[in-house]
Amino acid sequence: MQENFQQTLEQIFELIEEKKYALVRTELLQCNEADIGEILEEVDEELGAEKAVILFRLLPKDISAVVFSYISSDCQRDIVNGITVKEVQNVMEEMSFDDMIDVLEELPANVVDKILMRTDKETRKLINQFLNYPESSAGSLMTIDYIGLKKEMTVGKALSYIKVHGMDQETVYTCYVMDSQRHLEGIVSLRTLVVSDDEEEIEDLMHEDFISVNVMDDREDVAQLFQKYDYLALPVVDKENRLVGIITFDDIMDVIEEENTEDFERMAGVFDDSDKDYFNLSVGQHIKNRLPWLLLMSVSLMITGAILTRFEALLSQVISLVSYLPLLMGTGGNSGSQAATLIIRGMTVGDVELKDAGKVLWKEIRISFIIGLVLSALNFAKILFLDGQPVLIALTVCSALLSVVMFAKVLGGMLPMAAKKLGIDPALMATPLISSITDMVSALLYFILASLILGL
Amino acid sequence: MQENFQQTLEQIFELIEEKKYALVRTELLQCNEADIGEILEEVDEELGAEKAVILFRLLPKDISAVVFSYISSDCQRDIVNGITVKEVQNVMEEMSFDDMIDVLEELPANVVDKILMRTDKETRKLINQFLNYPESSAGSLMTIDYIGLKKEMTVGKALSYIKVHGMDQETVYTCYVMDSQRHLEGIVSLRTLVVSDDEEEIEDLMHEDFISVNVMDDREDVAQLFQKYDYLALPVVDKENRLVGIITFDDIMDVIEEENTEDFERMAGVFDDSDKDYFNLSVGQHIKNRLPWLLLMSVSLMITGAILTRFEALLSQVISLVSYLPLLMGTGGNSGSQAATLIIRGMTVGDVELKDAGKVLWKEIRISFIIGLVLSALNFAKILFLDGQPVLIALTVCSALLSVVMFAKVLGGMLPMAAKKLGIDPALMATPLISSITDMVSALLYFILASLILGL
Repeated sequence: MQENFQQTLEQIFELIEEKKYALVRTELLQCNEADIGEILEEVDEELGAEKAVILFRLLPKDISAVVFSYISSDCQRDIVNGITVKEVQNVMEEMSFDDMIDVLEELPANVVDKILMRTDKETRKLINQFLNYPESSAGSLMTIDYIGLKKEMTVGKALSYIKVHGMDQETVYTCYVMDSQRHLEGIVSLRTLVVSDDEEEIEDLMHEDFISVNVMDDREDVAQLFQKYDYLALPVVDKENRLVGIITFDDIMDVIEEENTEDFERMAGVFDDSDKDYFNLSVGQHIKNRLPWLLLMSVSLMITGAILTRFEALLSQVISLVSYLPLLMGTGGNSGSQAATLIIRGMTVGDVELKDAGKVLWKEIRISFIIGLVLSALNFAKILFLDGQPVLIALTVCSALLSVVMFAKVLGGMLPMAAKKLGIDPALMATPLISSITDMVSALLYFILASLILGL
Repeated sequence: MQENFQQTLEQIFELIEEKKYALVRTELLQCNEADIGEILEEVDEELGAEKAVILFRLLPKDISAVVFSYISSDCQRDIVNGITVKEVQNVMEEMSFDDMIDVLEELPANVVDKILMRTDKETRKLINQFLNYPESSAGSLMTIDYIGLKKEMTVGKALSYIKVHGMDQETVYTCYVMDSQRHLEGIVSLRTLVVSDDEEEIEDLMHEDFISVNVMDDREDVAQLFQKYDYLALPVVDKENRLVGIITFDDIMDVIEEENTEDFERMAGVFDDSDKDYFNLSVGQHIKNRLPWLLLMSVSLMITGAILTRFEALLSQVISLVSYLPLLMGTGGNSGSQAATLIIRGMTVGDVELKDAGKVLWKEIRISFIIGLVLSALNFAKILFLDGQPVLIALTVCSALLSVVMFAKVLGGMLPMAAKKLGIDPALMATPLISSITDMVSALLYFILASLILGL
C-alpha cells in the first residue's frame, strides 16, 4: 500500500514536469484526501509553492477543503499566499469549524482580517471567540458541528433530523440533548437510536451521567479522559453547563502525539513551543531551543570542574584516580536517567502518583543497592587484576561507585515527583539535569572517600 | 470530577471496613465501568485480593465483564485466582471477543485450558487461532464483533439488521460489505446509511477504495494508519482478502501509549518487554531491565578511563587540565542527546525520513557550529578572567569544546538514521550511547589538542 503511494507520487511528479495537469487531476482524485495532502506537501517542498498552488486549484472545492486541513501550516501558508482571498474564503466555508479555526490561528493577521471581513457578523463573533481560547485549553480543540436533540423528541423524529443534518457534522455518532437554554441534559449514541423503536422518547434513552469538560480545562487532562474511557467524543460546556462544542477523538490523537513529542524534547533539554517539525524550524530557532539549557548545564559542569580543582593536590599525588572519573560520572548519570525516565513516564500515564513517593523510594533503594553491588564487584576485580592497581584504590573506586549508583537512582526517582508536587513539569528533571547533579556528587564523594581510604 | 472520584473511593474503603457490602454495591453501580475498574485495582492493592474478589462478586454479570476488561493483568489474575472457573467462564462469555483474547493471553495456561474445555468446538478453534497471532501483529488487536452486510441489501434492510445485532458488536459505525466467501468488497458508515433513503442499495453507497491491513502487519504501522486517516476502525484481512476481523481506535490508543513508553524507556537504556507498570515489576525484574545496558556502557566508560591513563604524563604536568574535563564531556553528551532525540522522534512521527540524511547533516553542522562558538567564547572569557589560567589553556579547552559540540550534534543526528537504515531501533541511539561515545572522543580530542597547543 505504501509502495503504491510512492508510485503514485512519482507518477504525479512526472506528469507535472510534462505539464499534463488534466492527468494529474485524474490521478489525484483517485487518492484519499490524506494522501492528496501528503502529495501536495511533497510538491511544495520539492517543486516549490507555485506548483503546489496549481495542484491545489485542480481540486474540486469540497475535496480541497478537506485536503487543506490535512497539510502542515507551512504548506497552508504557501497555498494561501498563492491564491486569492476569495478562494481562501471558499475553502474556509467548506471546512469543518474546528479545522477552520486551526487554519486561522496559523495565518498572518492581515489575511485573517480579510477573511473575517467577508463573513457575516454572527460567524465573525463566533470565530473571534474560538480564536481567543488558549492553545492549551479544551476550547481550542472544539468544533461546533454536532447534532443537538431535545429530550421530548421521539427516536423517529431524531433520526429524521439526523438524516437531514447528519452530513454537515463532525460526528453523528454521539448526539447531545439540550434544553432551550442549551444546558446539556444528556447524551445518546446513534447506535442506541438505531437499535431502538421509532416511538421511544429520547428522554428515556439518554445517559444523564455523562462526562463533560470545561472550555478552560487543560487539553492534556482531556486527552487522559479519552484514553481512560475510550470515548469517540466529549461535550465541552461553559461555567453554566451550557454546551459550547464537542471534542472528537481524532483531534485528541494529535494532542497525544504533540504532548509526547514535547515530553521527549524536554527530557533532552530542548524547548520548542512551536509544534513545528525538525525541518520547518530554522537554524536560528533550533539554536534558540537548545542553547539555554546547554548554558544552564554548563554552569553546573563548571562547579564540578571547581570541585576537581579543589582536590588538585590529591589528584597530583595519585594521578591514576583520574582514570576512574568517567566510569563514576557516566554510570551515575545513566543510572539516574533510568529511574527518572520510568517515574516521569509512570506519572504521565497515571501508573505512579505523588502518594506513592515512599514506595518509589524503597523500591529504588533496593534496586540501586543490588545494581551498585554487581557493578562494584565486577569493577573491583577489573581494577585489581587487569589494571594492576593497589587494593585501596580499587576499594575507593568501588565504594564510590556503589554510593553514586544509589544516590543517582534515588535522586532520579524522587526529583520528578518533587517537581510535580511543586507544579514544575517533571519532564525537566530528566537526563541533563540528573546527570549534571550526579557528576557533582560523584566527584565530591570520590575525593572524600579517597582522602579517607588512602589517608591523604 | 477527579475530586468526586477520590471521595467515592474513600467512601467505599470505609464501607468495606464496616462490611456494609450492600451499600458498597449501590455506590459502585453509580460509577462508570472504567471508574469501577480503578476502584477495584485500588482495593486489590491496598486491602488485598480477597476484598477485591468480594467487590467483583457484587457486580452484575454484564457490568463485571466490562470492568474486568479495564483492570490491569495483575488485578485480573488476583480475581481469577479467587473465583471459580465457572464464574470466570461467565465473565468471559459477556466480554467482547478482543477483550477476552487479551485476558486469555495473560492467564496461566491451566486456567485457559479449563476455560477452553467448557466452550464449544467452533469457539475453541477461533480462540486458539487468535491466541496464536504474534503480540506485535495486527491480528492480536482484532475483534470479530462487527457488522457484516451484503451489497444486494437495501439501506432499510441493513438498518433492520443493525437494529437486531447492533448491541453485541464492538462498533456499528463502520459496516463491512462481503461476498459469500467473506471477501471484503466495500465499507459503508452508519452515517451514510442513516442519511440515505431506505430503498437505496448498499452497492451504490459503499466505498470500494477502503484501506485494510493484513493480520500479520506490524501494529505500529497500523497505529500510524489510524493517526494519518483519523479512522474509527480498520478492517483486517488475510492473504486472500477475506475479512478476519476489525481493529477499533480505542485499542490503537493503547498501542500508541505502549509504543511511546517503550521509546522513552529504550532511550534511557531500560529494556522492559512486559508492558507492566513500575509497581507491578518486582525489584528483580527492574534489575534485569536496567543492569545490562549499564554494564555495556561501563565498558565504554572504562575505555575513556584508559584514554585518560594513556595521557597521565601530560595530565601530571598540567593538572589544571583535569578540571575542564566535566565541562567537555557533559556538554558533549547534552548536545548530542538534543540532536538524537529530535531525530529519533522526528522519524517516529514521520517528519524525518532516511532520504533527508544530507539535510539533517547540513542543518546540524550549522546549528552546532554557532552553539559551539557561543559556548566557547563564554568559556574562554571565564577561564581567562575568572579562573586566571594562561591563554593557551583557555585556547585548548575552547577549541576542544567547539569540536566536541560539533561532533556530538552530528553524531546525534546521524546515528539514529544509520540505525534505522540497518534495521536497528533508533531509540537505542539515545543519551546513554551518544554520551558514552562523546565522552571517549572528548577525552581524546582534548588531550591531542593540549599536546599540540601546549607543545607537550
